[in-house]
Amino acid sequence: MSRIAPPLNPPVRILMGPGPSDIHPRVLAAMAKGTVGHLDPYYLQIMDGLQEMLRGLFRTKNPMTFAVSATGSAGMEAAVVNLVEPADSMLVCVNGVFGARMADVAVRAGAEVMQVARPWGEVFTPDDLQDALAKAKPKVVGIVMAETSTGAWQPLEEISQLVRDSGAMLLVDAVTSLGGVPVEVDEWGIDAIYSGSQKCLSCPPGLAPVSFSPRAVEAVMNRKRKVQSWYLDITMLANYWGTDRVYHHTAPINMSYALYEALRLVHEEGLEACFARHMLNHRALRAGLAALGIEYAAQEGHQLPMLNAVRIPAGVNDAKARKALLERFGIEIGGGLGDFKGKVWRIGLMGHASRATNVLVFLAALESLLAEQGHKFDHGASIAAANEVYAK
Amino acid sequence: MSRIAPPLNPPVRILMGPGPSDIHPRVLAAMAKGTVGHLDPYYLQIMDGLQEMLRGLFRTKNPMTFAVSATGSAGMEAAVVNLVEPADSMLVCVNGVFGARMADVAVRAGAEVMQVARPWGEVFTPDDLQDALAKAKPKVVGIVMAETSTGAWQPLEEISQLVRDSGAMLLVDAVTSLGGVPVEVDEWGIDAIYSGSQKCLSCPPGLAPVSFSPRAVEAVMNRKRKVQSWYLDITMLANYWGTDRVYHHTAPINMSYALYEALRLVHEEGLEACFARHMLNHRALRAGLAALGIEYAAQEGHQLPMLNAVRIPAGVNDAKARKALLERFGIEIGGGLGDFKGKVWRIGLMGHASRATNVLVFLAALESLLAEQGHKFDHGASIAAANEVYAK
Repeated sequence: MSRIAPPLNPPVRILMGPGPSDIHPRVLAAMAKGTVGHLDPYYLQIMDGLQEMLRGLFRTKNPMTFAVSATGSAGMEAAVVNLVEPADSMLVCVNGVFGARMADVAVRAGAEVMQVARPWGEVFTPDDLQDALAKAKPKVVGIVMAETSTGAWQPLEEISQLVRDSGAMLLVDAVTSLGGVPVEVDEWGIDAIYSGSQKCLSCPPGLAPVSFSPRAVEAVMNRKRKVQSWYLDITMLANYWGTDRVYHHTAPINMSYALYEALRLVHEEGLEACFARHMLNHRALRAGLAALGIEYAAQEGHQLPMLNAVRIPAGVNDAKARKALLERFGIEIGGGLGDFKGKVWRIGLMGHASRATNVLVFLAALESLLAEQGHKFDHGASIAAANEVYAK
Repeated sequence: MSRIAPPLNPPVRILMGPGPSDIHPRVLAAMAKGTVGHLDPYYLQIMDGLQEMLRGLFRTKNPMTFAVSATGSAGMEAAVVNLVEPADSMLVCVNGVFGARMADVAVRAGAEVMQVARPWGEVFTPDDLQDALAKAKPKVVGIVMAETSTGAWQPLEEISQLVRDSGAMLLVDAVTSLGGVPVEVDEWGIDAIYSGSQKCLSCPPGLAPVSFSPRAVEAVMNRKRKVQSWYLDITMLANYWGTDRVYHHTAPINMSYALYEALRLVHEEGLEACFARHMLNHRALRAGLAALGIEYAAQEGHQLPMLNAVRIPAGVNDAKARKALLERFGIEIGGGLGDFKGKVWRIGLMGHASRATNVLVFLAALESLLAEQGHKFDHGASIAAANEVYAK
């Protein structure tokens, strides 16, 4: 007895949550192009193009720059399990869900994990790490650049210098930041970094861009034990993504097409213009939200432009409001995770979702819902405030 | 400086290698549908449909049946790293590349791995396992049902009984077999099984269907240590794919659409009809190849219908012939791996690629190339032989 599920007919959504974000139409079209084999000469060109465009985006010359054939969380795992061996010491900075996840991944890899913590929404200063670095003398320091659970934007320039001075390798989570704000792998001396396709790259989830410094690759090549994950082992992946093209696993061809087209879009726009667009739409949204009396959850001066985590106004029903946004307006925003559950909304302005039409329609829809729930505010003020930002 | 790779413009291919195979046009169209969020009520319906259709295909009632968010090799890793803990004993049957890979994955997971081996192209009988089972008393026995490197079709009925009688859990690689020949998870008592989207399901690579028996899930839930892979840990994935829908990672939405449509196609055709189609086209190809004097690499009576591994005729240049097939006819077939490199071609008739037009165009193209390379045969005989099979 066959059981056939109903025809595929997804509703049209405006994706303003923590990811996936709105997909660019050219990226969707790219996904549907004819599949070729994973060792086809044409696919090898696609791999070359992906690597070259990813290096441009990560601002690195690292040869070992590629896309892991899985989602961003697997990118995290790839970075961690290659760099640490059992009994290695790793220091992880935890100020949200994704720092905590990194610590969990490191423990599973057998690392001796030491954590430094900051309250959710805050960022780390070099001072926060000094003692722990001196005490743990870690082989690896892990930190999240854009904490998707809190919207906090972690500065890395000074911390990366401190970590390098200590002799440790720096491992960075750039899942939400890559493509939305500057990520300077070489200038900041980052040894391992990972991201996801579904945030600021306007591409569906399914691939994890990563980059490893030559120093990190050398450390992996000189491990005492094999990398615990066969799938994520960069000593083998180097032969597939390198010039040898030795078969490892069957690459996700059509997802690669999507990321390829997404990266073409970013480079066509130009990195600076792309970052400026993310910042402008963030400023417009923030002005609009301020007019509604809505405040940000992350520390002042360290708020991510692409992930706006804001306090749910008092008296407003979280689940009801998000359900109405989705069902009546087709707009998805994210709820809070962990400590922020029921207290915070996460409004994404990532990639193709970072545009004025999204900001304005979201504010208008939100006004409508807040009015229904009895929230008091000056009607139309949020739109006016956002438009004022755009007018400048 | 932005570096923009050339526009995406893949050549049209007929994919008759070891995978990816030809993608059904409905599957390509499904991939390009609008992305929704991974916790969108609509996506939860897609997950339900995927699970239900996968259970139908695996012929199982296992609740823990889902698609790993990565390719088939990650499915292998998911099966192994969940079932074995450090110092657990695992017996792996090795008669090709993928059995050897499974042993490697198990060693990396800390298992005490014992191997039983058969020559490439041969299959295992229960007798081959008796001694090893008695000696190693393994917790898990791993075996490949369809060895993609040799084209050997491993019978599982008797071996599964033997493994169960020994008290071990049975772990099966069904990457190439699922959707092409019967896979009876419940009837054969399989505890963990994995496959890939890009073989007999007419879907691009990127997802790994898996299923775990209740007995296997219980064993995982009672592990002494956490699963070494956070990404593949089914104790957490159970909460995402189960009724709780607890966020784990961001699922690859559009790849899920593709697999969903691919599974609808399989169930629309019906499993029996689908298996019969794979067998018919295999018989036609085999008859055609025989007319050219080309022999199978796998043991007589154990040749996979969807993966035809054949000996390259004496005097024929492997690389030159495959290059000409690809460049002049757009036909991809696979070369040999490992021991079979330069000696074997792997001709896939998987999923949408398993159709008479592919068989006939391939034989006609092959005749053309063999004639050029001076191979002696009766011209047109391969087509006639194949058509004779179809005419019956």
